[in-house]
Amino acid sequence: MIHKVAILSTGDELTTGKVVDTNSAYIAESLFSMGLDVVAVLKVGDTKERLLWALDHALSRGDLVIGTGGLGPTADDLTTAVVAEYFGRPLRTDQAVAEALKRRFEARGFPWTENNLKQAIFPEGAAIVPNPVGSAPGFRVERDGKALIWLSGVPREMQAMMKETVLPWVAAASGAGKISVATFKINGLTESKLDDLVKGVSLPPEGRFSFRAHYPDLTLKLTVRGEHLDGKFDELTGQIRQILGAHVYAEGDVTLEEVVGKLLRQKGWKLALAESCTGGAIAARITRIAGSSDYFTTSVVSYSNESKVRFLGVKQATLDAHGAVSCETAIEMAEGALRAGAADVALSTTGVAGPGGGSEAKPVGTVWIGLAQRGGSEARLFKFSGDRDRVIHGGAQAALNWLRTALQ
Amino acid sequence: MIHKVAILSTGDELTTGKVVDTNSAYIAESLFSMGLDVVAVLKVGDTKERLLWALDHALSRGDLVIGTGGLGPTADDLTTAVVAEYFGRPLRTDQAVAEALKRRFEARGFPWTENNLKQAIFPEGAAIVPNPVGSAPGFRVERDGKALIWLSGVPREMQAMMKETVLPWVAAASGAGKISVATFKINGLTESKLDDLVKGVSLPPEGRFSFRAHYPDLTLKLTVRGEHLDGKFDELTGQIRQILGAHVYAEGDVTLEEVVGKLLRQKGWKLALAESCTGGAIAARITRIAGSSDYFTTSVVSYSNESKVRFLGVKQATLDAHGAVSCETAIEMAEGALRAGAADVALSTTGVAGPGGGSEAKPVGTVWIGLAQRGGSEARLFKFSGDRDRVIHGGAQAALNWLRTALQ
Repeated sequence: MIHKVAILSTGDELTTGKVVDTNSAYIAESLFSMGLDVVAVLKVGDTKERLLWALDHALSRGDLVIGTGGLGPTADDLTTAVVAEYFGRPLRTDQAVAEALKRRFEARGFPWTENNLKQAIFPEGAAIVPNPVGSAPGFRVERDGKALIWLSGVPREMQAMMKETVLPWVAAASGAGKISVATFKINGLTESKLDDLVKGVSLPPEGRFSFRAHYPDLTLKLTVRGEHLDGKFDELTGQIRQILGAHVYAEGDVTLEEVVGKLLRQKGWKLALAESCTGGAIAARITRIAGSSDYFTTSVVSYSNESKVRFLGVKQATLDAHGAVSCETAIEMAEGALRAGAADVALSTTGVAGPGGGSEAKPVGTVWIGLAQRGGSEARLFKFSGDRDRVIHGGAQAALNWLRTALQ
Repeated sequence: MIHKVAILSTGDELTTGKVVDTNSAYIAESLFSMGLDVVAVLKVGDTKERLLWALDHALSRGDLVIGTGGLGPTADDLTTAVVAEYFGRPLRTDQAVAEALKRRFEARGFPWTENNLKQAIFPEGAAIVPNPVGSAPGFRVERDGKALIWLSGVPREMQAMMKETVLPWVAAASGAGKISVATFKINGLTESKLDDLVKGVSLPPEGRFSFRAHYPDLTLKLTVRGEHLDGKFDELTGQIRQILGAHVYAEGDVTLEEVVGKLLRQKGWKLALAESCTGGAIAARITRIAGSSDYFTTSVVSYSNESKVRFLGVKQATLDAHGAVSCETAIEMAEGALRAGAADVALSTTGVAGPGGGSEAKPVGTVWIGLAQRGGSEARLFKFSGDRDRVIHGGAQAALNWLRTALQ
């Protein structure tokens, strides 16, 4: 029965700091949320001695070891041979994998060279872990009740292999049975406040909360193990919805800009933006989504007062009387974007991102957000703490979230 | 003599995947570039048994172990006590640190509670590693020719402690003597092409290249150890400049938007942007820099054809004859931004970011970039490969780099 897991990330690029290892965090979160215990993560470079040391120590700590990296066709990709040696098994070519590799190369018009066959070689008796989005499959070997699973080190490939093959296998092998997962995307709460709030949920022993925080994004995941818990699971998600209320902007693994894009598309509405303190950050998030040209027309990033007047029709008298960072300017900016951007709804931001430019009346972190639609317009005052980056991205998140609630 | 290093990152947030561990990559890169060998990175959660296991295995692999995390004032911060137990030393309060902590709390108006004194307790005989930007200092303990250095897990604090105290100590203890470092910021090369090119530099045994890649950013660092190498070091940096030529956009640890901002400030010029396919990504980079309102006026993120006409004065006839993704449109967009944005120089981008919208004549990745100044305007064609994100960010980088060369 698998309960303790060790994770092993390999590659010289990790021990020289050339790239940050995100794979181990992804794998750790996936397993933790299933109720498994990640006892250690090890990272070593691509040498035989170090791989053997790491394999030995990872397998001494975990019932299951999940490793990544070193499955490529070149000479410095040692993993498969080292694993075979460690387990005392000969290497065997898997004919089905070899043929699939050749077909893949042909289909893409890449020249086939024999060293690519290296990716079809596995330790004898290994189970293949298919790679649905890349060329190198992974494998699983077992001995003495322990299992080692090895995956591609390319994050996109590793994630696909985890989802399609590894997690279902782990669910069965860990006796977890059916795994029910609910993901809540959170707005307007700090991590510690979220942590406090969900303590009020009466979680059964087979349930677990996990968190992922990447400011301004915050995700709560509920995982419950067990076959006959359908009613119980619905009851738990209901409790969470009640406790978190409007702080939940979506369920499922989606971004706020995806939610907003979908709502705009449903209504057949067009969006325009007038960004001052967010400096293009909202437009950049909206346009990351493929197809956003269907519902997004324009953002005027008006950093100067002149451009607020010229592009958005903000009145000079308004700027003189109230300043650029004011309720009145935010409203005129949003109305200008709505009109000039030929949109159905428009957002504006104007604030003090810092570190300079603050005053007693308008300290760093002060952000006015405006929202205009044909029925009328409104502005709201927000206060953010932290450095320039946090004010910019906090402002962008608050603006998108207000737009979401206005569209719903 | 210190040569082999093991890195130890601790905290339940790492083994549950709540946060990605960036500290170990930073420490690994710093030490690798000094000629040290990072033999292993270990990550474990905050339990005594796991910390002891990790300490024991890290110290068995490295002459030096650098650990992070668990120095806070709360009950789950175990590190100092566990290290003291492992080294068989009693815990002692450092009076100077205790008084500095109290003064820090007073100065900030935070209420002082006795549990904060925990951050002034260290294993007997430990050397204090000051924390110039936070409350918890680190420490160094030595035994049998091996050293353990423990630092705050907060990235900003860890980095300051590394720079000010740890790296100078490591330089002396590793016999590296003086460390000379040159950092080159690279544009227009892939990692593997950069790697190939610098193979032409005749690096002495005491010299080392390290790379950091975070698309579209690419950094090359040259580190040379030794006391009497000033002439040699200048010769090496000269060779690198000659080989890489215009691919080096800056020396030192600066971003392309910082370089561009400095050049605009020096010339007293104002910048405006007209962004289509980059969707606000250039504006977002420019405005991340504090004080950018001094030289940046406006970006018009014109996602629709209508907004290209209305805000930028692009002629409908140009759009009809050549399409939005064309040399002619790019030039009219840049000229419109220059004029309406009241700027001295303007950039424009228009392209196919994908995944949809490509054609045989204009496949996904096609990006026209325009540059206008009072003397005239020009557009250039770029081709990017990869997904939507890579086209957007590749386009933004190419545009900023062209602006840099135009300003120089």
